[in-house]
Amino acid sequence: MNELKGACIFGQSGGPTSVINASAYGVIDTALKTPCITRILGAEHGIKGILSDRLFDLGREDPTELRLLKYTPSSALGSCRYKIADPDADSTDYQRILDIFKKYDVRYFFYNGGNDSMDTCNKISKYMQKVGYECRIMGVPKTIDNDLYGTDHCPGYGSAAKYIATTCMEVYQDARVYDTGMICIIEIMGRHAGWLAGASALASAYGAGPDLIYLPETDFDMDRFLADVERVYREKRTCMVAVSEGIHYADGTFVSEAKTEATDGFGHAQLGGLAPLLASIVKQKTGAKVRGIELSLLQRCGAHLASETDIEEAFMAGKAAVENAANGITDRMIGFERGVRDGKYFCKTRLFELSAVANAEKKVPREWINAQGNGVEKAFIDYALPLIQGEPKLPKLDSLPRFAKLSKILAK
Amino acid sequence: MNELKGACIFGQSGGPTSVINASAYGVIDTALKTPCITRILGAEHGIKGILSDRLFDLGREDPTELRLLKYTPSSALGSCRYKIADPDADSTDYQRILDIFKKYDVRYFFYNGGNDSMDTCNKISKYMQKVGYECRIMGVPKTIDNDLYGTDHCPGYGSAAKYIATTCMEVYQDARVYDTGMICIIEIMGRHAGWLAGASALASAYGAGPDLIYLPETDFDMDRFLADVERVYREKRTCMVAVSEGIHYADGTFVSEAKTEATDGFGHAQLGGLAPLLASIVKQKTGAKVRGIELSLLQRCGAHLASETDIEEAFMAGKAAVENAANGITDRMIGFERGVRDGKYFCKTRLFELSAVANAEKKVPREWINAQGNGVEKAFIDYALPLIQGEPKLPKLDSLPRFAKLSKILAK
Repeated sequence: MNELKGACIFGQSGGPTSVINASAYGVIDTALKTPCITRILGAEHGIKGILSDRLFDLGREDPTELRLLKYTPSSALGSCRYKIADPDADSTDYQRILDIFKKYDVRYFFYNGGNDSMDTCNKISKYMQKVGYECRIMGVPKTIDNDLYGTDHCPGYGSAAKYIATTCMEVYQDARVYDTGMICIIEIMGRHAGWLAGASALASAYGAGPDLIYLPETDFDMDRFLADVERVYREKRTCMVAVSEGIHYADGTFVSEAKTEATDGFGHAQLGGLAPLLASIVKQKTGAKVRGIELSLLQRCGAHLASETDIEEAFMAGKAAVENAANGITDRMIGFERGVRDGKYFCKTRLFELSAVANAEKKVPREWINAQGNGVEKAFIDYALPLIQGEPKLPKLDSLPRFAKLSKILAK
Repeated sequence: MNELKGACIFGQSGGPTSVINASAYGVIDTALKTPCITRILGAEHGIKGILSDRLFDLGREDPTELRLLKYTPSSALGSCRYKIADPDADSTDYQRILDIFKKYDVRYFFYNGGNDSMDTCNKISKYMQKVGYECRIMGVPKTIDNDLYGTDHCPGYGSAAKYIATTCMEVYQDARVYDTGMICIIEIMGRHAGWLAGASALASAYGAGPDLIYLPETDFDMDRFLADVERVYREKRTCMVAVSEGIHYADGTFVSEAKTEATDGFGHAQLGGLAPLLASIVKQKTGAKVRGIELSLLQRCGAHLASETDIEEAFMAGKAAVENAANGITDRMIGFERGVRDGKYFCKTRLFELSAVANAEKKVPREWINAQGNGVEKAFIDYALPLIQGEPKLPKLDSLPRFAKLSKILAK
């Protein structure tokens, strides 16, 4: 083992989740206990905070507030969607990062994000190697979309899935109280992968969920969709539908953006997105009372419904990143491998090459989706159910969430 | 005390809440223990179930499932929005109700709903008195809107308020992670009264809520609104706004329905309602990234965030209705009166004349809203905060809600 002494930088990137701060706490808590890490810096708004020398001295935070990060949704340090240039085309950013790394004697960089962030890690690492600056760079996964390559699943997904399933079960109770009938269309995040919309099937598996589920893994056909909805509605006088925001026609056009025949007269100002669009089309076709509901940001920040499994795994991913780096590992993303022990789910970390994860995307396997493309199979339920388990003991003040309040002292 | 022996009918009416079934359990559980009540019938879809002779024999339900009603959102028996005729104009419905009451020897009628339902109770009671049929009729309040006359507050409000405040606190974390700025507009239920939108101020009181709140109690002015939002956004690079769905211009037109100058080119197909409409206007004006979020049904069925205080009070209201009726009381709605004991909030039931409650509406006092009409005062917080307290121990199965499953056996 090669002992490398120096500071570390931790940053958060991309869309937040309910548990990205649990990974932050995993990194910070472990780094504080790791002798070779001399200082823990938090980048404001991810890589942008490095470029602009906005680094918080996380060692100076109140330990009680740091612990609360485990239950605080979103990105406590701020996030970004900054696409770093190809270093061969433009190395300005990389030189700047090198300067900052040198300024603070940074020898460890932990970046918490999705596939774009793994690409950023990979590029920075390659650059540092090229210029001969020793620095260990580790990716910590996060994304509610659950679309990272290699890993069994991603921190953030389990909590979002639990939020979606629980909310569907509640709306299911509500959307059937009148004898006048009702169709309810729920729009769920997921531009290219249907993991989140598929999670609504957990509600159905427990008797109170969508009748129909449409994922972006299969092509959407408006006529078939309308026939499906009408059939269920005629039979049950109620119909609940879950759709991924990314459902698209066979030619690749997103349904949310397309002007179909059916939307003529409606399709010209889709302020509200997919759910109200589909609601208006279904209403026109069936004459039923139709409600479109977009779960919006709520599904990715609903920490009050977080899965304890997800929180602990997110923490574990952050911890493993620091431990592996301290042990000489670099250029890897922490991922998960699931197993069964005594008939129960368990999960351990595994290392993946950053270059393999960068910009790749994992979709729901076609065989986990039913033949008609309007629901998911039991294999999906078996996959997702263990990830939503466990009720964390949420810190509250006067029955409202007590989130971490960081003092964010800038490093000198 | 005049002992009156016979069956009771319980029904649910209007929009459901997270705790209307807790009141149902209060009625059922107490009625089961009340010797003069010989049988407990549940009306399917409220008054409609009586008219169509669709009555469930609730005494035959599994007691374990009945207990789960306390934590099951929405209206387990089904609800309706049936406006009963004036008995002097058309007594058909009343004669039918009388027939059904006679058929099952119904001597107690408990109806759980809002002000329309209290009007229904009142009319039925007056009719029964006129025709000399002895029957005790009690209203049990419910409405997330909190707009019932007389009572300090309504069952259902506390849980919805808690859902709204918690959700706002979470979205607040999420809507400020990027350094690119963001404006977030949250649409909250409440057509004529702003109690629900006002509850978002609980989030602000705990440091993570809306900067601006607009209630239907004051007239809305688009120019002033836009100036408010711009001012906050310029200062903070972020702005969170809560609006009641019922905000309206000085002439009474709902903002959601009006075609203002600012909406030209946008206002012609408002599929998504108020939040996307305001979002598009604010975006046009500020150039900022703007997100409109409608809390939709989620806020009224979000039982996983129910207030224990609300659940217990809802139960207590159902219980008090039965106890009072058994003691000879009729023509009253159960309401609440709050007090302070040892420096702590407490709540006891009080009786209100059905005729006083029927069709009346209680709005947020003007002095609880700030002078500018874009926020609420501390008096509102002091009023609402006790109502959201306490975390119920929610029954779960595999980390998903375990709602009551009634067998709904039709009464013979």
